[in-house]
Order: sequence, then structure tokens, then C-alpha cells
Amino acid sequence: MVSALYPGSFDPVTRGHLDLVERALPLFDRLTVAVAINSQKRPTFSTEERVAMLREVLHDALPGDSRVSVVTFTGLVVDYCRAHSIGAILRGVRTVSDFEAEYQMALTNRHLEPGVETVFVMPSAQYSYVSSSLIREVVRNGGDVSSFLHPTVERRLRDRLSNSQS
Amino acid sequence: MVSALYPGSFDPVTRGHLDLVERALPLFDRLTVAVAINSQKRPTFSTEERVAMLREVLHDALPGDSRVSVVTFTGLVVDYCRAHSIGAILRGVRTVSDFEAEYQMALTNRHLEPGVETVFVMPSAQYSYVSSSLIREVVRNGGDVSSFLHPTVERRLRDRLSNSQS
Amino acid sequence: MVSALYPGSFDPVTRGHLDLVERALPLFDRLTVAVAINSQKRPTFSTEERVAMLREVLHDALPGDSRVSVVTFTGLVVDYCRAHSIGAILRGVRTVSDFEAEYQMALTNRHLEPGVETVFVMPSAQYSYVSSSLIREVVRNGGDVSSFLHPTVERRLRDRLSNSQS
Amino acid sequence: MVSALYPGSFDPVTRGHLDLVERALPLFDRLTVAVAINSQKRPTFSTEERVAMLREVLHDALPGDSRVSVVTFTGLVVDYCRAHSIGAILRGVRTVSDFEAEYQMALTNRHLEPGVETVFVMPSAQYSYVSSSLIREVVRNGGDVSSFLHPTVERRLRDRLSNSQS
Amino acid sequence: MVSALYPGSFDPVTRGHLDLVERALPLFDRLTVAVAINSQKRPTFSTEERVAMLREVLHDALPGDSRVSVVTFTGLVVDYCRAHSIGAILRGVRTVSDFEAEYQMALTNRHLEPGVETVFVMPSAQYSYVSSSLIREVVRNGGDVSSFLHPTVERRLRDRLSNSQS
Amino acid sequence: MVSALYPGSFDPVTRGHLDLVERALPLFDRLTVAVAINSQKRPTFSTEERVAMLREVLHDALPGDSRVSVVTFTGLVVDYCRAHSIGAILRGVRTVSDFEAEYQMALTNRHLEPGVETVFVMPSAQYSYVSSSLIREVVRNGGDVSSFLHPTVERRLRDRLSNSQS
Repeated sequence: MVSALYPGSFDPVTRGHLDLVERALPLFDRLTVAVAINSQKRPTFSTEERVAMLREVLHDALPGDSRVSVVTFTGLVVDYCRAHSIGAILRGVRTVSDFEAEYQMALTNRHLEPGVETVFVMPSAQYSYVSSSLIREVVRNGGDVSSFLHPTVERRLRDRLSNSQS
Repeated sequence: MVSALYPGSFDPVTRGHLDLVERALPLFDRLTVAVAINSQKRPTFSTEERVAMLREVLHDALPGDSRVSVVTFTGLVVDYCRAHSIGAILRGVRTVSDFEAEYQMALTNRHLEPGVETVFVMPSAQYSYVSSSLIREVVRNGGDVSSFLHPTVERRLRDRLSNSQS
Repeated sequence: MVSALYPGSFDPVTRGHLDLVERALPLFDRLTVAVAINSQKRPTFSTEERVAMLREVLHDALPGDSRVSVVTFTGLVVDYCRAHSIGAILRGVRTVSDFEAEYQMALTNRHLEPGVETVFVMPSAQYSYVSSSLIREVVRNGGDVSSFLHPTVERRLRDRLSNSQS
Repeated sequence: MVSALYPGSFDPVTRGHLDLVERALPLFDRLTVAVAINSQKRPTFSTEERVAMLREVLHDALPGDSRVSVVTFTGLVVDYCRAHSIGAILRGVRTVSDFEAEYQMALTNRHLEPGVETVFVMPSAQYSYVSSSLIREVVRNGGDVSSFLHPTVERRLRDRLSNSQS
Repeated sequence: MVSALYPGSFDPVTRGHLDLVERALPLFDRLTVAVAINSQKRPTFSTEERVAMLREVLHDALPGDSRVSVVTFTGLVVDYCRAHSIGAILRGVRTVSDFEAEYQMALTNRHLEPGVETVFVMPSAQYSYVSSSLIREVVRNGGDVSSFLHPTVERRLRDRLSNSQS
Repeated sequence: MVSALYPGSFDPVTRGHLDLVERALPLFDRLTVAVAINSQKRPTFSTEERVAMLREVLHDALPGDSRVSVVTFTGLVVDYCRAHSIGAILRGVRTVSDFEAEYQMALTNRHLEPGVETVFVMPSAQYSYVSSSLIREVVRNGGDVSSFLHPTVERRLRDRLSNSQS
């Protein structure tokens, strides 16, 4: 029985993230989406807000599916995996730049904890160019991102970014 | 219960391939190593020889492990997966060039059969530069490849490449 | 008034090629699709067949559009451009590997003929992983490529590849 | 009649930018150089200064050429294009990293406004390694950048960077 | 007699840096490790601390080897080389991203001073994924980095990062 | 005293190769240009012809310079280095694709012979897109390559490629 952890910032969750969850679910017994509490960066949404949006989006897409859960974590991803008997880290790769950064991270994680393997899955081609940061940039400039975000997430992001500039 | 297919030429099997099998085994219930019968290329070893070497190497490394098996296949990888209820294709990625070729192949396979997901796992850093073709080139020029090949495979490769040039 | 040349093998024409033509058409006054007669490679289809399929596909997609034409050429792309007063070479780029090969080719062409500029346009994300060689491989193994090829082209490719192996 | 927009920071304009303008001019009926007013970043020069330098450099290189103009813009590039009936976005690509970032941006812009196509042109090999940020770094350390900047721009950049550190 | 300069931040020195020094030493008559005094960035360690750690690590690894020395510098790397009759700049490259950034820097340096050549050497595969920034991130999250750092450096880094967050 | 080996096909020698030799010469005591006798590939010129052209080009560029010599070799590059007390392998890198292939080769060579280090030097930006294979393609199609080849080499290449097609 293999469980997987899908760590990230999810600031906010996009349809690309959801696509990856749906692709990974058939591969694992359980999938834990883990929101990083990173004190170094200044996220657009608080940890609590990011968790709440993830839970709402996942509930809509996969109602009542007990295999998926959302948690927060601090510290090393591999420490969380070890403490919770999770054998795999799930990551999406879209571009060569992604690939190189993920490769270095995966080899570092393997060095820190050889018992946890990183597996990579590719998002749909239609989401291959979507990132949270690009979406925030588009929203900031008034563009339509409804194809990339759940309606609730889109509304919250518009509210947040318009407020932060006033 | 998720089964995975690890397709390739395995001409011949290297320690890098074995490393990937050992990394993937904890992630899946069953792992099928599938040797492609490709009528277009001229392999160094026949399909039968490649299968025999894979079986010997896997038997040595994982004696009595019934989760791993070796098969041959023709046609599309996804057709084999569908026919045998295999939900995942396993591939190793070492370099950016690998990544791009694998990305195109994975998206094509997803288009052909959406029910099969390709997952990527990274080999050990010590095997990150090992490929069957580079190993053949080194052997052809008299170099020592014992770190990269099982002893039986190394002996067979030396025999084959010295004969093929006489 | 700027005319553009879209050179390639088109062995055979894919929906990705057609997508690029349709994207480029609003940018130029005329667009000439130029099939390379390359004596070095062994194409799947003869030059005449590739031209005929291109004409049929373009006629279906853009009936009566006199801005597009199909020609064959030998020799340097830039020599053809100079002889026919064409100021731009159109190329699609999908991947980093494409990009590097195209970059070298574009700088070489610029050296040979500074008056002709290479412009790059990106295909639709849905065609970003489609290449003629990958499509041929899929057809050879019995896969369905109807999303990537015009029906006539698909039928011809199936006929050709099944015959070539009998 | 196709017009193109060449958006960027131009902080400050380099000979690489000018090279791209000169290469693109024969391809389009009009070329609008558009300086982004980005409230998020702290540019070295104000929007007004960047526009003034662009106008001086373009006036020197292309005196009296009414096809080129310099504007500022806020918001989405594609919104500006739509509002001004501009059908093409011009971008230079020098490196693989450039390519990937530009690819994501181009696909996003196409999603936001399918009627505007991004076209890529390559700068001269001699400018392939020149970026505004690298030039600022060299000037900050006392290096000679006269090959990469118009004399006026070079003087202003020296003044600005020496003042900003005092 | 060729001397080489190995410039960098060394914030702090890793075993990957030391590996590169040891690989480069047989190639040059003298090797100067040069710590950049960069007023723009906020390093984790002061220039003096970074120099002291480098000297301790190099003294341990290469006791009494007068061919290696540690200096600090401001301004352009090539100006330092010219002033000290150093003919080569040594840089390590691990990834494609490294390669592109280094390529641009090397061509810029060659433009500024044609008499100094940049040479690239690859670190051991086991250090190919190690960077000072990734190590700092791991330490910040409580991970074990003793394989990547000299014991003194590791202790200092733990002290520094725990203090900086208290 | 460090000697370096510059191995390659040199089929034929280009100005890019010569540029690399001239850049590397100040770094080493001796530089041996080594033409690979590769029985697998079908070169355009015989080994003897490639050596003769290299000697003529080097004689013209560096008359009487006894530090450079031209040899042929079979087998592993590192075996040649070991037998001749050569401590460095010189390679040029122009592109990301080059870099990855060279990286794998360099790590393999290091594994085979840890006492020989591969060093990479970048060619001039003006030769960054020049390769022997691209030059052969241009000549085959009647293009002018006098900027990239020594006059003797250019003449011989034209003769060879026109004869080979008759």
C-alpha cells in the first residue's frame, strides 16, 4: 500500500494542480496534498486560505473521496514522509527548467531519505504553460483566467490582488 | 492494485536499468519489464538474448521476487498495457534531452490511451551518465565497464562486439 | 508586402503543420509551403505525393485562398527566397531541442543571406508533441492518429506503412 | 497590413534591442515599441527616461522612419494589441531559458487573445549574450559596455549607477 | 605558467567547491579562489567569514599547498585577472541552466578582456546536485548536510541559520 | 607542465576548431589535436586527408609553433591520454545539446581514467552556430562557406561533395 505526498505552495491551487491530483490518484492508495508553510516567502494567500481553497476544489472535483487529504507542513518534505509512512513524493514537470530544478531537489531528497522516491507525472498539454505566478500576473493586469482556476479561487484571487494594490 | 510496465530496448540491460527497477518496486504491486521487438532497428543482441540477460540480472538482484517479470512486446506500449490491465508506464529520465523526448512520447501515449499514466523516476546520480549506447561504444574501444554491467552481461557484450568486428 | 516561405519535409503533412500555416497567414501577404527535395534522406512519400497531400489539406482548410501555394525546391532555402523575393522564413518551434537546431539553422541562413529573416511561431499546445516521425511510428504500431492527420493523409499513411512492411 | 508590438522593460535600451527592431521592420507595416509600466519591479530608469532613450536611439538609427513609434502601456500586452488593432507580438529569443519563458508567455497570451500571434526573431550572434541586467552589472563594476549601448544611453547608465551607490 | 582564478560567492564553501579545486589544481600552476564582495546581495556569511572557512577547508584538504590561495575582490573578475596576470577563469557547470548563465557571462568577460579565457570543469556526479542555496534550505529545515559540507562549515551554518530565525 | 588532447572527427576542420585551438594554446604547454579513426562512421574525408588539412590550417595560423601537433588515434581517448602523459581533454561547447552529450562523455571518461580532466572552452560567438555537418549541408546545396573554412579546406570540400553526388 503506497501513499504519496504532493507538496507545494498552492498559492492558489490551479486546474493544473487538480489535473495532477486526478492523474496520480489511480496510482496510489492515498494522496496527501501538503501545503508548505514557508516563512521565507510572502505568499498571496495565508496557509489557512490556501488549505481552504484546496479542500473546496478537491471536494467539488472528487466529492467524498477519502483517499485525498490536505495538510500543512514545515521542515523537510522527507521528514514529513518518514513520520507518516509515505513512500513517494509526487511532482509535476512541465518544462526543462522545471525538470532541472526538480531533478536537483529529488536527488537531495533521496540523499536525505533513501526510502522515499520522487515520481514525476506530466500535466495535460492544455495546462503545460499554467503556473500560479503567471496566473497572478494575468489577474493583476485584468486578464481572464477562468479556464485555469476554479470559480471560487478565481473570485478570491481577484479580490486579493485588487485589494493589495489599493 | 497498480501494475507498471517498464518498456525499453535493454540492449543490453545495465545497472542503471536495474537501479530503476529497484526504485520502482516499492511503488507498484507488479512491475513488468517489457523488451521491445523493434523490426526497424538492428539491436546488438536478439530479443531472446536481451530477455535472458534481464532475467538473469533480476534473478541475481531480486531472487524469488514474483512481483517482477520480463516479457516481449510488439506494437504500441499502451495497447500492451490495456490488454494486461497495467495502469502505469515507468520511465527513467537522466538528462534534459531524455526529458523532452520522453515528454513527447508520454503525451502521445496519453492521447492514445488516457487510462495509462507515465511516471518518471530518476536513476542514481552515479548512473546518471550511463546509457547502453555509450557502454557499447566504450566496450568497442576496449574500456572497462564492469561498474555499469552485471558480470554476465559484460562478458556477453565483449564477446559480441569483438566478434562483430572480426 | 512581405511573403514568407515555410520549408520542410512534410512527410506527411500533419494538423500541426496546418495549424502553423493558419497562424502565419494573417501575418504575411503570401505564404509558400516549400517541400524539400532531399536526395540524402529516404522519405516515406515521394515529393509528388507530399505536394499532392499538402494541396488537398490546404484546399480543404482554406478553399480558394490564393495567398497559399505549395512548391518544391532543391538547394538552399535562402537561394529560393532570394530568387522569388521572399523576405521571411517561417518555422515552428515546439521544444528546446527544436529551438537549438532551428537557432543554428537560422543563424547560418542569415549569414548566407542577410536579407531574409527567420521568424518562429509556436504551434497550438495540443499539437506541441506531434511530429511526422512520431506519427509514422504510431501508425506502424497500429495506433489511432486521426486527431493529428487529415483523413486522406491518414489513409495514405496506413496504406504506405502496411505495404512497406509486407 | 500587419502591425507588430515589441513589448519589454528596455531598462535601458541596448544595441540588441535595436538590432531586433531593424530585423523586424521589413516584416511589418508598423512596429510599436512598448515600454511596460510595471509597478511591481523597481527599474533603474523611470518610464519617461526609458521612453526618451528609446526615442533618441531609434531616431539616430532610423531617422524620420514613421513606421516605428514608442509608447508605454499598463495591463495585458494582448489588451493593448486588441485596442490598437495590432496582430503580432514581437519577441527576441537568445537562449533556451529565454525560449521556455517566452513559450509559456506566448501560449498564455494566445489563450487570452487568439487573434494576436507571437513571433520570435533571433538577435545577431554578436548580441546573443547581451541583456540589460548583465550590462547594468558590468557598468556597476566599472566595465566598458560601449559596444552594447548607444553613447547617450551608456553615459546615462553610468551616471545613474554611480549616483545610486553613493 | 598559467594561473587561474576561481571566483564565486562561497556562501559557504561546499564539498562541491573543494572537489572543483582539486580537479583544477593539476591543470594550473596557481589557483586563486576569489570571494566576491557583492554589495547588492545579502550573504549568509560576511566576506571575512567566507574567506576564513575557505582557508580552513583548503588547509585541511591540501595542507601546505602553496599553489592555492584565497582572496577577495570587488569589481569585474577580468579586471582582477588582468591586474594579477591571471590567464584563466575557472567555473564549474552542473546543469543546463548553469551552462546558459555561465555561457553568457563567459562571452561577456571575453568581450571585456580577450586575454582571459574561461574554462569549465564538471564536478563529481555525487556533487552534481549540490548548491550553497539548496544546502542552506536543507539546514534551515533541519536536514543533515554532513556529506556536502566540511564539519566546521556545517556547524557554523547551523549556528547562523538557527540564530537568524530566532 | 600540462598537455591537452583535443579529440574529434575534424571532417573537415573549420575555423571554429581553429578558434578553439588558439584559445586553448595559452592555457597548456602542449596541445595535441587527435583525429578519431572511427570505423563505424563513414567520414567525408579519409583520416589521412583530415590530418593533412588540419596540418595545413594550423601551419598557416600558427607557423612554426611546436606546441601544437596533429595525431590519429583509435580506441579510448583516455587510453591515449594515459599512454602519452596527457592530463587534460579539451572540448568546445556551443549549445545545450552539446553540453549534455559532452557532460555524459566527460563523466564516462573520468570514470575510466580519473587522472585525466575534461575542460570546456567556448568558441567565439561568431562560430557558435558552425558545425562540420551543417557546413557540409550548405556546400552540398551550393552555399558560400568561405567565412567558416580555410580556402584549401573549402576547395577540397566542394570537390569532394560534388564528386560524391555525380
